Amino acid sequence: MVIEPPYLIFLGDVPDALAAKTGLGIVDWRPEWCIGQLRLEGCKADAGIPDLSVEEAKAQGVHTMVVGAVNAGGVLPAHWIASIVEALEAGLSVATGLHVRLASIPEIAEAAARGGSGLHDVRFSNVQFSTGKGSKRPGRRVLTVGTDCSVGKKYTALALEKEMRARGMDADFRATGQTGVFISGRGAAIDAVAADFISGAVEWIAPDAAPDHWDLIEGQGSLFHPSFAGVSLGLLHGAQPDAFIVCHEPTRTTMRGVSNSLPSIQQVIDLTVACGQLTNPEIRCTGIAVNTQKLAEADAKALLEELAGAYGVPATDPIRFGVAGLVDRLETLD
Amino acid sequence: MVIEPPYLIFLGDVPDALAAKTGLGIVDWRPEWCIGQLRLEGCKADAGIPDLSVEEAKAQGVHTMVVGAVNAGGVLPAHWIASIVEALEAGLSVATGLHVRLASIPEIAEAAARGGSGLHDVRFSNVQFSTGKGSKRPGRRVLTVGTDCSVGKKYTALALEKEMRARGMDADFRATGQTGVFISGRGAAIDAVAADFISGAVEWIAPDAAPDHWDLIEGQGSLFHPSFAGVSLGLLHGAQPDAFIVCHEPTRTTMRGVSNSLPSIQQVIDLTVACGQLTNPEIRCTGIAVNTQKLAEADAKALLEELAGAYGVPATDPIRFGVAGLVDRLETLD
Repeated sequence: MVIEPPYLIFLGDVPDALAAKTGLGIVDWRPEWCIGQLRLEGCKADAGIPDLSVEEAKAQGVHTMVVGAVNAGGVLPAHWIASIVEALEAGLSVATGLHVRLASIPEIAEAAARGGSGLHDVRFSNVQFSTGKGSKRPGRRVLTVGTDCSVGKKYTALALEKEMRARGMDADFRATGQTGVFISGRGAAIDAVAADFISGAVEWIAPDAAPDHWDLIEGQGSLFHPSFAGVSLGLLHGAQPDAFIVCHEPTRTTMRGVSNSLPSIQQVIDLTVACGQLTNPEIRCTGIAVNTQKLAEADAKALLEELAGAYGVPATDPIRFGVAGLVDRLETLD
Repeated sequence: MVIEPPYLIFLGDVPDALAAKTGLGIVDWRPEWCIGQLRLEGCKADAGIPDLSVEEAKAQGVHTMVVGAVNAGGVLPAHWIASIVEALEAGLSVATGLHVRLASIPEIAEAAARGGSGLHDVRFSNVQFSTGKGSKRPGRRVLTVGTDCSVGKKYTALALEKEMRARGMDADFRATGQTGVFISGRGAAIDAVAADFISGAVEWIAPDAAPDHWDLIEGQGSLFHPSFAGVSLGLLHGAQPDAFIVCHEPTRTTMRGVSNSLPSIQQVIDLTVACGQLTNPEIRCTGIAVNTQKLAEADAKALLEELAGAYGVPATDPIRFGVAGLVDRLETLD
């Protein structure tokens, strides 16, 4: 599945920025791909790029309209369907991360047929994955893991890609979730893969590569999250990382959506190494990435210094302080 | 999904018993549900029950024809479709564990409509599972775990159910794979569930129960299998077992389908406890079940004695020596 940029980002009429986080994430990381946004009356999100009609977007060379917003309940409201139909009839492809296939909605299927346009359901991969093989692949791999869901695993992997590329290193972000797929134009949402194929899907996402090539693989969930740990373990085994970065949000008290408390960073390191050795005996933790958004700058710096000292690896907030230290450490990996 | 017995076991024209192992497993564990078998010319498998036509089966009260065989490649050959159509037209329901939905085959969909009959695709649950909650549910739960795939996890759980029921204990086998679903008439094949919902599906399979009720939950894969460990971990978290039994095949040198060597029983105990504590802090190993089929009886007994001594828990071959010792230990669980 390759989703062709440039994009028109559809934000619908969502009530807040959170409901548009997929669209805003794409604009953050791939501004050069995002020609404009399409917002309906009453939309409370704004990606800060030009508002364009479908017609204007088409004229400016857009190839794909990405539905970068979710409605309450994850359903596709009727007035969004009309915008999708309009885009398809204009010859744009349409991509979404909904739990329903676009082609299962008759008006959309008909419009796609009329426009000769592509439909991309990133939560439904058309790839027939194999089960994981577990054998070592050439190339170097870094996985971001977490003390919880939504602690910056995708952002950290993307920041590593950006910094490595700026240094002239051969590096690719590897998407394992829907927003990541839109940002990179490829990958697969592994949370939607049939359970038997989790590690096999990741082997496909981060395939054989040149010996000095770096895959920066987006982590999912946490080995300590009771809802999603199976996904995290299959991802760890399929990624067979040489190195991993632990991502953390220091003000959170319970794990997202459940009542469990967060594991310590040490617990995450220990279990990741214990399990990850199955497919890469050399696996090691090479850094800590903390989302310090809710801390004052001095407190953030003190915390990062404390963590770096305690764990003997660089610690940073990728958004606030960059990832130069994390990449320095990876460059010296033997 | 409840599959209504009694069953007619369809074995097609498979070339050997292995290709009929689902059907033979059902007959082993639920002989009272299996009125007869339907075999086509050239079939080399035999479940040892009466050969019946669809018409004869219907007359003897069969409700469901279960496709208990797989063809090479897992496809449904044309001459099997004819038998399925015949059963549906006679008013029987049909159940399979194929990777393709029965209703996606037009002749079958039409025959089901004509006969008013049910189609059960056990690898495609119609249940909309929730993500796992991880909170402790009332009732007692035992999970069978393994050093590998295909080491007797289903048979051990079924043997525990049989022994517990014989002792008047309130006990239910809980199926997590297709053969288990046919044997118990309910459950779900969790290897086919979308990855995000593994633990949630298991919470549904083994729901809240009376405090002295026992769920004997069928394990899948192994935490040490690079293809399937994600399934095993989600299953462990969703099952939140009070006790687990390690299943093992002592003559196997590499894990099924991959080149990894088997973990030790101690490794399986340690990682199962380390991970399982997330949803049940009381989790402990209460027994070892060994498939000793390839060992002479004296060697088997010596091995089991050695394991029981080394690990301080009862060790048995459920098929050869029964599971009385395993149940004795569970009965004294505090």
